[in-house]
This record gives sequence, C-alpha cells and structure tokens, in this order.
Amino acid sequence: VSKQDSARREQPTRGFIVPIGGAEEKVRTASILSRFARVCGARQARIAIIPTASRLEETGPKYVSIFREIGVGEAFVLPIESRADCKRPEVLEQLQSATGLFITGGNQLRISTTIGGSPVAEMIRQRNRSGHLHVGGTSAGASILAEHMIAYGEEGSTPHADMVMLTPGFGLTLNVIIDQHFRQRDRLGRLLTSLAYNPRPIGIGLDEDTAAFIGPDDTIEVVGSGAITVVDPSEMEFSSMDSVNRHAPVCVTNIRLHVLTEGGTYDITTRKARPSRGKS
Amino acid sequence: VSKQDSARREQPTRGFIVPIGGAEEKVRTASILSRFARVCGARQARIAIIPTASRLEETGPKYVSIFREIGVGEAFVLPIESRADCKRPEVLEQLQSATGLFITGGNQLRISTTIGGSPVAEMIRQRNRSGHLHVGGTSAGASILAEHMIAYGEEGSTPHADMVMLTPGFGLTLNVIIDQHFRQRDRLGRLLTSLAYNPRPIGIGLDEDTAAFIGPDDTIEVVGSGAITVVDPSEMEFSSMDSVNRHAPVCVTNIRLHVLTEGGTYDITTRKARPSRGKS
Repeated sequence: VSKQDSARREQPTRGFIVPIGGAEEKVRTASILSRFARVCGARQARIAIIPTASRLEETGPKYVSIFREIGVGEAFVLPIESRADCKRPEVLEQLQSATGLFITGGNQLRISTTIGGSPVAEMIRQRNRSGHLHVGGTSAGASILAEHMIAYGEEGSTPHADMVMLTPGFGLTLNVIIDQHFRQRDRLGRLLTSLAYNPRPIGIGLDEDTAAFIGPDDTIEVVGSGAITVVDPSEMEFSSMDSVNRHAPVCVTNIRLHVLTEGGTYDITTRKARPSRGKS
Repeated sequence: VSKQDSARREQPTRGFIVPIGGAEEKVRTASILSRFARVCGARQARIAIIPTASRLEETGPKYVSIFREIGVGEAFVLPIESRADCKRPEVLEQLQSATGLFITGGNQLRISTTIGGSPVAEMIRQRNRSGHLHVGGTSAGASILAEHMIAYGEEGSTPHADMVMLTPGFGLTLNVIIDQHFRQRDRLGRLLTSLAYNPRPIGIGLDEDTAAFIGPDDTIEVVGSGAITVVDPSEMEFSSMDSVNRHAPVCVTNIRLHVLTEGGTYDITTRKARPSRGKS
C-alpha cells in the first residue's frame, strides 16, 4: 500500500484528495487517518488541520493528538475563525510548509463562507494541483473538497426537485460531487438530485468511517469499514429536472450504480469499478 | 474594435465567452450579434446555433436568418432535442467545423439536462478552451456558460437563504456567475445570495440587450444598450449564510459593485473596472 501511495505521489500531477464519510475518529484502529498520514509522508509529514467547520474548541487539538499518536512528523492547527485570518502571513506560511491538510467536520457553509475565495483557499487549490499538498476532510470537510458542494438537503432515497442545495466548494476536482454520512442519513435521493441537473460529474456517497482516496490519476480506492456508493450518470438518457414542479419527484433513466467496499477501486476516467483485489 | 477582437483571438488561449442578457434580437441594430459575428470571423465565420433551451420550432431558424443578414459565412442549427442527439456523429462533425456557437434562450435546465455531460458539452468546452470556438448565448443560453449556473430563483434585491438554485453549467469559466434579464427582473438579491455561499467567483448581472464580451485574457467589455452589474465579493469580510434560517435575509459585508455601460471594461484578474474610453 505505501509503495503504491508513494508511486502515485511521485507523479508530477496533483496531490491526493481524500473525502471521509464522518465518524472515522471513533473507530479505535483509525485506519483511514493512518493511511492518510502515510500518503502525506508518515514521519516526514507535516499535517495542517483546519477546524473552521466546527464550533467546538477541542476539535482541532483532538486531531493534532490523533495524528501525533499515529506518528506523523508534525501536526498543527491553522487558527482560522474569520475571513481576516485567511490573509494573515503566519497562517499562509504554515500552510505553505504543510505536506497534508485535514479539514474537520461541522458545517460546510462555515468553511465556504469563511475561507472561500481567500488566499488560503487559493493556496490549498494550487498546492494540491501541483502535487505538494494532499487534502483530506471528514463530513463537512469532505463536502467542501470538490467544485460543486452539497451545502444541505433533505433525506430520502428518491430524487425530488429542490431537495438539495449545490454551492461552490474548494474546487480541488470538477469530476465528483461528494456526499457523506451516506447510508446513515439516507442520502441517495439528494445525490441523484444533484446529478439530475447536469450529469457531468459522478456522485460519491461515503458511509461513515469510510474514505475515498482519489489519486492523482483520478482512481478512487476505498478504505474503511463501510461502503462507497458511486453514482455514474454518464449514460443517462433522460432527466425531467427541467420540467418538474417544485418538490416533485424527478424521473432519471439509465443511471449506473456501484457499491464498493475496502480495497475496491473506481477509475473516474474510464468509469470502471473493480472489487477489492482479494475477491476479483 | 475589430482589430482588438482579432488581436485577442490570436492568443493561444481560450475563445471568447459572450453572455447576453436577453432580448438582443428585438433591437433593430443587432449590434451585439454583429460584434459576435465579427469575433467569430465575419464572412469566414461558421456559426452553429443550439436552440435546445427553447420549445419553439422557429427559434433556431430565426437566428440563422439574423446571422445570415449580418453577413456571416455560414449559420446552421444543431438539431439537439435529446441526450441521444448529443452522440450523433453528424452533430459532432458540424460542431467541430464551427468557429462560433450561439445558444438561444428558453430554459437553462433543458440545456443542462439534455446536453450536460455529453460529447457535445465536452467538445464545446475543449474547443473553447483551445481558442477554436467562440461561444455566446442569450438569457438561458447565457446562464449555461459558466461552471456555476443559476438554474432558477426568486426576485428581489435583498439576498435571502434558499432564494437561488445553483447547478453545474457548461464550465467555460470558473471565475463568474452569470445572471440575465437583470434589471428587468430585479435579480440583484439572487446574485448576492449566490456569492454569499462562497465568494470566490464574481457575479455578472446582464440587462436585456446587453452583452459581456469576456476575452481570452479574462477582460470583460460591455456591448449593448443596457448595463452590466459586476458584483465583486473578493474583499467580503463576513457572510451569515452558514447560520441563517431558511428564507431569512442574509448579512454580507464589503461587497464591491460596479455598473458598467457600453465600452466599459472589467478585468477579472485584477478586479479593476474602467468606464468607456470616451469618458475616462
């Protein structure tokens, strides 16, 4: 695994993007965060933590402790509470020195309203794009990663008009729309709704304690105890989203769906899913 | 003017992006469409028309007539009514041969649900990015051009939570969110709401019979009888969007606003507005 990680990291393309479905820190083994730490350089890793989504003061220090227990070289909190903080030279210097960035849970709109469009957001995007910064996030911190972010929505497995709000995120990738706490909060409907407006991205629904390690080559690998639901609308033949009434159910046809568990992979470019190597 | 157009067109970057606020064809002089035709090559221009947003059969032929009267080399309708049409080789061949693409008004969700994520959408994006295709659109056809599209929303000049729906568009630019029929339909509130989620893009509100010629260098020039309202949130100090109740008014501070008329320019990179040269 670590060989694969380092092979990918050496590519002169972007860094890893690692959305996590939430609650990963409650699991004793912390396998997802250990894997993320290895991707970021293990003992050489310098992991910055953005706790802005959370209103709890202990959130940042909690992740510092977890990453130090795992054995990363350094872990520290970026103290961002306001838009003014996103211009402070010491914050930008700390971010510039990091090999990894971890964004905690909370409210994703608190992240986008506080950091969106700021020098911090631009540095995250540029350093990830150049391959110098791997970026992971859990729950709200997962939602913020892509260009189109699910800000909030309603539960239920059937897509309905107006059941989801899409807003701009950090824009690390244009190719996916990420949802989290997926099985636990019955969110297939809002993910299908998101894709029914324009079936260009794929949808990724992450269960709790489950991560998508999206490599520089746009291959996703599943890590964790739950599943990832990949919703591929590229062969969609029809969407009624242009003609439905507000809150009415939406008709979509020919959606392809994969449920992948640990070790399973999905190639976003070729749209091919593979079960974990042990079982293929 | 035409010298400036061709100078920009020769840059090895993307083609022009030309959103129009609607109703441009009702004005006898058709100055916007004439300027668009010149950008596309005038007598050498081959302008493809996508009438998919409209349910009216005459929409496509109407624009063919207008462009032929203006004197473009060729103008033709791309017959796209379903997602299956977006894979037809003859449609893709016609689009491949075009120097300009014009997208008519109607319902922007009809464009995104029918064309989004298809080979036609991908060809539009790639040929615009490489500078081989200039893309203009009016009303719904303006909204579809950017990455974040206002699908629908409510009227009024004060931003409110949930008053606007943002969905993925054609993605020709990440830097702007476009709104149209701007003054005529009192849409400042929904444009401010769009930016209050994440103040990374700028907002462009287009009055009817008014166009933004967004050049390869990301400079906007205003053409037409109305005004363009540029909303720049890059110095925003606060947005309450993460904490407001549904439908409640939203607090945003330090938004910069410019109202530009014909000949005025705006540089998206430097965020500088200039009145028309005659008056500066």
